[in-house]
Amino acid sequence: MKVIIAGTGAMGATYGSMLKKSGNEVIFLDLWQENIDAINKNGISFKNIGVEETIEGKAYLPSSYNESADLIIVFTKSMQLKEMLNDIRHLISEKTSVLCLLNGLGHIDTLKEFVKPEQILMGVTVLTAGMKGPGIFEVTNYGKTEIQNIVEEGKENALKVVECINNSGLPTVYSEDILFSIWRKACINGTMNACCALLDCNMLQLGKIEKSRELLGKIVEEFAAVAKKEGTTLNVEEITNLVCWFTTEEFQGVKHYPSMHQDLIQKRRLTEIDYLNGYVSRKGKEYGLDTSFCDLITILVHGRESVLIGG
Amino acid sequence: MKVIIAGTGAMGATYGSMLKKSGNEVIFLDLWQENIDAINKNGISFKNIGVEETIEGKAYLPSSYNESADLIIVFTKSMQLKEMLNDIRHLISEKTSVLCLLNGLGHIDTLKEFVKPEQILMGVTVLTAGMKGPGIFEVTNYGKTEIQNIVEEGKENALKVVECINNSGLPTVYSEDILFSIWRKACINGTMNACCALLDCNMLQLGKIEKSRELLGKIVEEFAAVAKKEGTTLNVEEITNLVCWFTTEEFQGVKHYPSMHQDLIQKRRLTEIDYLNGYVSRKGKEYGLDTSFCDLITILVHGRESVLIGG
Repeated sequence: MKVIIAGTGAMGATYGSMLKKSGNEVIFLDLWQENIDAINKNGISFKNIGVEETIEGKAYLPSSYNESADLIIVFTKSMQLKEMLNDIRHLISEKTSVLCLLNGLGHIDTLKEFVKPEQILMGVTVLTAGMKGPGIFEVTNYGKTEIQNIVEEGKENALKVVECINNSGLPTVYSEDILFSIWRKACINGTMNACCALLDCNMLQLGKIEKSRELLGKIVEEFAAVAKKEGTTLNVEEITNLVCWFTTEEFQGVKHYPSMHQDLIQKRRLTEIDYLNGYVSRKGKEYGLDTSFCDLITILVHGRESVLIGG
Repeated sequence: MKVIIAGTGAMGATYGSMLKKSGNEVIFLDLWQENIDAINKNGISFKNIGVEETIEGKAYLPSSYNESADLIIVFTKSMQLKEMLNDIRHLISEKTSVLCLLNGLGHIDTLKEFVKPEQILMGVTVLTAGMKGPGIFEVTNYGKTEIQNIVEEGKENALKVVECINNSGLPTVYSEDILFSIWRKACINGTMNACCALLDCNMLQLGKIEKSRELLGKIVEEFAAVAKKEGTTLNVEEITNLVCWFTTEEFQGVKHYPSMHQDLIQKRRLTEIDYLNGYVSRKGKEYGLDTSFCDLITILVHGRESVLIGG
């Protein structure tokens, strides 16, 4: 299979490297010239579950590459997805599947502006990887990847893509209800990410504040109300139990600072809040739902962005 | 008039010193032994609008003093009011007026547990003072003090107290609607204090965040809804205009960090949130009102307390 990785950060580099090692033709696209140059010169330096590897790679700016592929995997920050899709629209042919594994909500609408529904594949992954510098990456946990077509006509391609990624060594399954998985993961991020960023704390500390369950449960309720309007049923109590479990000692990564905390507090970068609580707040208004907690959380996270980063 | 200052922090020391200088008998009570000792040894060292003064003072622990007074002014942090009233209950005679100038909501209920309604005087002050160390204080702005009895029978005493404080040099007026003034000030504190503490910013920065007016206006709305149930009508738009004005360059103190920011972020102390947004949240539930923004703000401020101070 010919695969284009559209966005060669930690996640893109990991999927691309694994796919390349297992015999696929892989092209890496990125917007960061230093990263492109490093990959072309030195290959992808890859610490793969502790094992050091170097994978030869061809990297380009999207505008400098002109050949289509069977599969494009988009791997940007949520707020850069639209720009990336615009940059690669010349690479999407009739036979190209476009797979989106980004966290967050609202990406299907964005994809539909550039890709026919039968070519869109959505997925969720819990793989964890990091970028150490231009061309230098580390994957610490393969996690599981779930993938599904968004309309029936895409199923055959989805199954092929699942097989291809699975064969590369990354455990991947076909999902019968990817929207549910996307919403469930969004609930986890919309509670852990947003609250830990606002309170400047890790997940264990979040679990220990007064009314922690009330806070997390109310956020999940609001996510579930919007999900329901969009055709996905979430069991509020089950998901609340799940997110609360992430704040207990029982969960190994409990002292982890979620990615939004890392972005906002540690790296002073804009967050993905508009694709989590911000999406629920925006859609809640459209559907006439009360999403006050997500409304306020979104205002406060943008407020922290403004105070810490300016703008 | 014989006056007892129950709580000799910056505010208590200022009112006490001014009352003493103008010929009243003043007793200073406090719970901090070092402060008591410093006052008894060196008097009150007072930087009074730039002028250095020393006022001789007699200071005691509440339990070490046994004589009643015409007026007791309580000047504690909100959360210490109840304990202080309990400590001074033996000093409250039939002829004692008890004046409370604390910020925040809910104090009348606390006062009523210890003092007859006809002896309770409520007030609002915008005087600004600071404590520099044991026995050392500074007042930077006399502001205005408003005072009213909470039941008609207390009016005569209220007028006497207004005259007495006014004669001391602190501009003081009799208020025809002290509840309105208390609620209006609570709106200012419930917006500026809570939001600047949560966002770790000053008032100018608060004014510059996206949806600042929506945020502040929604908080004011919730305060107004509870106030209405308690007999006070607040004009939401007027008060929202007022609080928004505090975040503009036009307001001189705009780069000021409100007291809750100082308490929580700078000094790592517990905040008075339960007497502002927390009161509205609690009472809102009792009255069946939606006070989601105050609910979440209260949870988050207590969350920050837990993260920063432990607990």
